[in-house]
Amino acid sequence: MNTVNTINELREQVRAWKAEGLTIGLCPTMGYLHEGHASLMDASVKSCDRTVASVFVNPIQFGPNEDLATYPRDFESDCKLLEAHGVDLVFHPEPAEMYADDFCTFVDIDVLSKTLCGKTRPIHFRGVCTVITKLLNTVTPDKIFFGQKDAQQLAIIRRMVRDLNFNVEVIGCPIVREADGLAKSSRNTYLNPDERRAARILSRAVRLGQSIADEGERSSETLLAAMREKLASEPMADVEYVEVVNGENMQPVDTFREGDLVAMAVRIGGTRLIDNFTVGQPPIEFQEGQSNAD
Amino acid sequence: MNTVNTINELREQVRAWKAEGLTIGLCPTMGYLHEGHASLMDASVKSCDRTVASVFVNPIQFGPNEDLATYPRDFESDCKLLEAHGVDLVFHPEPAEMYADDFCTFVDIDVLSKTLCGKTRPIHFRGVCTVITKLLNTVTPDKIFFGQKDAQQLAIIRRMVRDLNFNVEVIGCPIVREADGLAKSSRNTYLNPDERRAARILSRAVRLGQSIADEGERSSETLLAAMREKLASEPMADVEYVEVVNGENMQPVDTFREGDLVAMAVRIGGTRLIDNFTVGQPPIEFQEGQSNAD
Repeated sequence: MNTVNTINELREQVRAWKAEGLTIGLCPTMGYLHEGHASLMDASVKSCDRTVASVFVNPIQFGPNEDLATYPRDFESDCKLLEAHGVDLVFHPEPAEMYADDFCTFVDIDVLSKTLCGKTRPIHFRGVCTVITKLLNTVTPDKIFFGQKDAQQLAIIRRMVRDLNFNVEVIGCPIVREADGLAKSSRNTYLNPDERRAARILSRAVRLGQSIADEGERSSETLLAAMREKLASEPMADVEYVEVVNGENMQPVDTFREGDLVAMAVRIGGTRLIDNFTVGQPPIEFQEGQSNAD
Repeated sequence: MNTVNTINELREQVRAWKAEGLTIGLCPTMGYLHEGHASLMDASVKSCDRTVASVFVNPIQFGPNEDLATYPRDFESDCKLLEAHGVDLVFHPEPAEMYADDFCTFVDIDVLSKTLCGKTRPIHFRGVCTVITKLLNTVTPDKIFFGQKDAQQLAIIRRMVRDLNFNVEVIGCPIVREADGLAKSSRNTYLNPDERRAARILSRAVRLGQSIADEGERSSETLLAAMREKLASEPMADVEYVEVVNGENMQPVDTFREGDLVAMAVRIGGTRLIDNFTVGQPPIEFQEGQSNAD
């Protein structure tokens, strides 16, 4: 496995592979990798001749009061995981390599970015779309892989690829969970043991929502009331949103159907966590009453 | 010469050429082609194996009170010019092929788009950057050609290509002028004979500005005062702006130097015309006192 730090080196390696007729998969990450990321790498290695992973904490997708400075980093450990999962090339640029001092071009998406996380993170998806555009233009991959955990991000990237005619297939990979149901996230490392236990409430609410939907309920109001009640049962949980939106355009729906997205953001202590399910997907499974922190 | 109307057909042709190892030049236009456009085609045909011209009046770069509906169109005549200049493929899509009803992704550029034409055309360059991104993603050309007449557009595209890591060389081609000095533009067709004569004042002001700069003047204030006085000598000329800006970031400069841009927008009757020169370029030449309309 090779590591490069510059756009030019990355482009050079891609050019060599393309000259050989090899297909390329791209897995963009912010590092501090976990099994969720590993599942993207596995999907790419399985379906593409070569896999590029980027490890870059993208400054322009963080708001002024967000956790850019404290976002966890461990590049050495990341490389071990990437190598173990068969990644061919790691792109690990400095911020200055990606953003010149007078950088001023942004890819912005309307409508889909205004709901859910976009309400409290107004520049987040602009930052995501911009950095993904840069990576797509440099790697020109055949496929690009994202986790379903960031469901709104995935929907936005799909829309961006369609609207701007990127010649790439967008692959969404299922959420990977801890044994007790908590969705894997680099930010889980922020949680102290009490918060870690309390964080189980998100996946509990997801499972409750899934069971209600599976029983045939189609009223968003009814579904959300039950999920909010479940979340409210955890005193440490501070709910930012729980919503039901159309799976493609991310707009709220009163009556939901298969393919719609039920998504939440919940603060546990100072840590903002997200989770979601798509209506019609198989129910999530985890060990009741047990926490990795127990 | 072949004409295609869809992104997929365009991509298919490009794929075939790339498989043969051919280089591709792209000349984006809004049609109603003149010798200025022809010079782009010539430059592309000369330096690339294959040349694609797009003919598309891009709705999203027009403001609500601008001339989208009346913008001149003559596709048959355009095709004759393109064929005569050796273009291989014309891309001529319907607006619906480029913009789905729920299109909502835009490429926007800050700083460079706020001055000069950006002051009165706030969404113009966002529309330009977005359509050029779509064309770049579809054609993935080796070179893309723009006229220096739209100097701010050219600077913005250069910045966009740098910021978003498009793998393409941006080529700027000199302004082509009528015998009496008027810069060629599809919008010149809006001018009645009196306006056409009055429109000579733009190139007169350019030539005056060039001669003042060539004599060693470096104060923007002094240069602009002389050019404004020249423009004011034409009663039909309504000056929107005359400015001196840095040639790369389009920001006003008090003291100018080689490479800086002197640009103007002037209304003659209802028609908005633009012209410019770059400090240090050879002086423009035209026939004094004569108008094509005389």
